Amino acid sequence: MTVQITREQLKPLAAGAAILGCGGGGDPYIGRLVAEAAIDAHGPVALVDLDDVPDDASVFPVAGMGAPTVGIEKLAATGQAVSAVQLLAKHLGRPIDYITCGEVGGGNSMVPIAVAAELGVPLINGDGMGRAFPELQMGLAPMIGVSATPMSVTDEKGNRAILETISSRWAEWLARDVTIEMGTSSTISLYPMTGEQAKRAHVRGSLSLCTLLGELVDSTRAAHGDIGAALAEELRGVRLLGGKVADVERRTQTGFARGNARIVADGGSCEELVISFQNEYLLAELDGRAVAATPDLIMLIESDTGTAITGESLRYGQRVTALAAPADARWYSPEGLELVGPEYFGYDAEPTMAGAAR
Amino acid sequence: MTVQITREQLKPLAAGAAILGCGGGGDPYIGRLVAEAAIDAHGPVALVDLDDVPDDASVFPVAGMGAPTVGIEKLAATGQAVSAVQLLAKHLGRPIDYITCGEVGGGNSMVPIAVAAELGVPLINGDGMGRAFPELQMGLAPMIGVSATPMSVTDEKGNRAILETISSRWAEWLARDVTIEMGTSSTISLYPMTGEQAKRAHVRGSLSLCTLLGELVDSTRAAHGDIGAALAEELRGVRLLGGKVADVERRTQTGFARGNARIVADGGSCEELVISFQNEYLLAELDGRAVAATPDLIMLIESDTGTAITGESLRYGQRVTALAAPADARWYSPEGLELVGPEYFGYDAEPTMAGAAR
Repeated sequence: MTVQITREQLKPLAAGAAILGCGGGGDPYIGRLVAEAAIDAHGPVALVDLDDVPDDASVFPVAGMGAPTVGIEKLAATGQAVSAVQLLAKHLGRPIDYITCGEVGGGNSMVPIAVAAELGVPLINGDGMGRAFPELQMGLAPMIGVSATPMSVTDEKGNRAILETISSRWAEWLARDVTIEMGTSSTISLYPMTGEQAKRAHVRGSLSLCTLLGELVDSTRAAHGDIGAALAEELRGVRLLGGKVADVERRTQTGFARGNARIVADGGSCEELVISFQNEYLLAELDGRAVAATPDLIMLIESDTGTAITGESLRYGQRVTALAAPADARWYSPEGLELVGPEYFGYDAEPTMAGAAR
Repeated sequence: MTVQITREQLKPLAAGAAILGCGGGGDPYIGRLVAEAAIDAHGPVALVDLDDVPDDASVFPVAGMGAPTVGIEKLAATGQAVSAVQLLAKHLGRPIDYITCGEVGGGNSMVPIAVAAELGVPLINGDGMGRAFPELQMGLAPMIGVSATPMSVTDEKGNRAILETISSRWAEWLARDVTIEMGTSSTISLYPMTGEQAKRAHVRGSLSLCTLLGELVDSTRAAHGDIGAALAEELRGVRLLGGKVADVERRTQTGFARGNARIVADGGSCEELVISFQNEYLLAELDGRAVAATPDLIMLIESDTGTAITGESLRYGQRVTALAAPADARWYSPEGLELVGPEYFGYDAEPTMAGAAR
């Protein structure tokens, strides 16, 4: 089934993507402006199901890379993203049949829409993670043996790089250095794949899910309902805590936004939730006990509006609701946990949502 | 005129190149082993004069990049250098008609010989500087408007990068980051140019000059003559000091070997020469007064043997002779001084050898 992404659909899509981005994936407002401008100039984007993608099609993921704390100040233009895809396609000598999202996120679900609009090619309804993760070897593609490279890295000034590496970890290391030198924010196209590979390396329908989440927030807010509870139910997750942000420690370091936030519960229970992040929220501890850990989805929304709070937009005094939900089941496999489990990030904790994953 | 570089000619060529490398450009012993192995496997290399290179020929410079302190431990193989040139040629869609030296140096005059041998293409008798300099925007090519990029960067593990940048300074920044991540030593191919450009972007005959210097050292030593005086005369330079290395301060930092060496004069005069280096020797101060400064050639040899002393081989107690000589006259132009003059490196000094340059 192919539907069209029009300008009007971008708002709920970006809002939902920012929730599913788990604190990372870029700013939904800036991302939406970029996608709106591209659709205004080039028309709506065809959103296609993976079942309709031929096995021999040539698929190019595209995403922003770097620290979101920088991404909200050094804005990415569509031009550098289009350039990233075109450079990689030319290097490979392949046509650009489909654009897809490397990850879900307020920015990283929008930039591929803008690229698809400008190039006039369809966008796949899905993404390579079902959420956002901070490092580029973290995707379903490497789990099925798709190489991260050849990949391209571009900046807004016109600098471009192609990397060919012996592993996806080397791709992460070299692309991170290049990204930091470019100003800690870049656009990348990586994991070029066939349609057949795309069918195995995607979380299917995630862009539709983002739209559904965005619309659910709007309708629940209009009905004066409990937005956190509605989202938790839809995502088969739990509401961890509602409270006030009491402290945020944040630094832009080694190319990431790193830190943690302390949230004190409403209602005088004195419960405290501490959320640790490296771009994305990776660990939630309630009074010192881990209640969710990567690859679990850990999400923060404004309690009143349901607006996603990304790591870089966390502020003292915000009234927030913290949610946890299961990631795609493949992230809880031994191979998945090796890539993105708590141990990789140095946390002594276990994910808690695997049982509800599918 | 085309001559052949045979195995036997590598020894004086490498010895002379290490002298003209001004402390940088890589180790002549390791460089020679690499070139010997390639000539043993593939036969001698044709060394051609620039006058014999067609204007529309496709010329590829190749060089090592990084800190020589690392280069003597993490050895570059011919394979990664060949890979650098082939990757760039493929990216440009151009044939590899000629190989040339990005700079003169114990390693950087040898690696291109090995590449030319393995690829079976001729080598140009010349180089892009007439000496070695530490950063890749420092060459005659950018002065005539040849772009540093597209360029390639490769390592011994099999990682490869292509960079396309908006300036040669950006090429330096990005390639330096990639090189540091690769282990602070890489091989690069850059400033791809036509034969017509090569004629304007080269110091002509510099490989022949290296051989001549190496032979001069041998013959002067055999005759128990003054090697330093002989070299100074040949290079239209001066003997700054003969003495003993009293102190070496050296650190591998931001991808370079940086530091300075203190040399105390023989004969009880108590004169002290301090030489500062960033890979290459860039400033020589005699009792606090600058007696030579970049782009002047500042060279150190073992007083007895005439063997070049590179920055990474400087040791306490070595008996050395320090020499200064004029660089190619183009380095003393306003454009040349902007690229490589003392001010760029933060030295409050003037070059002293410009008068003898040609």
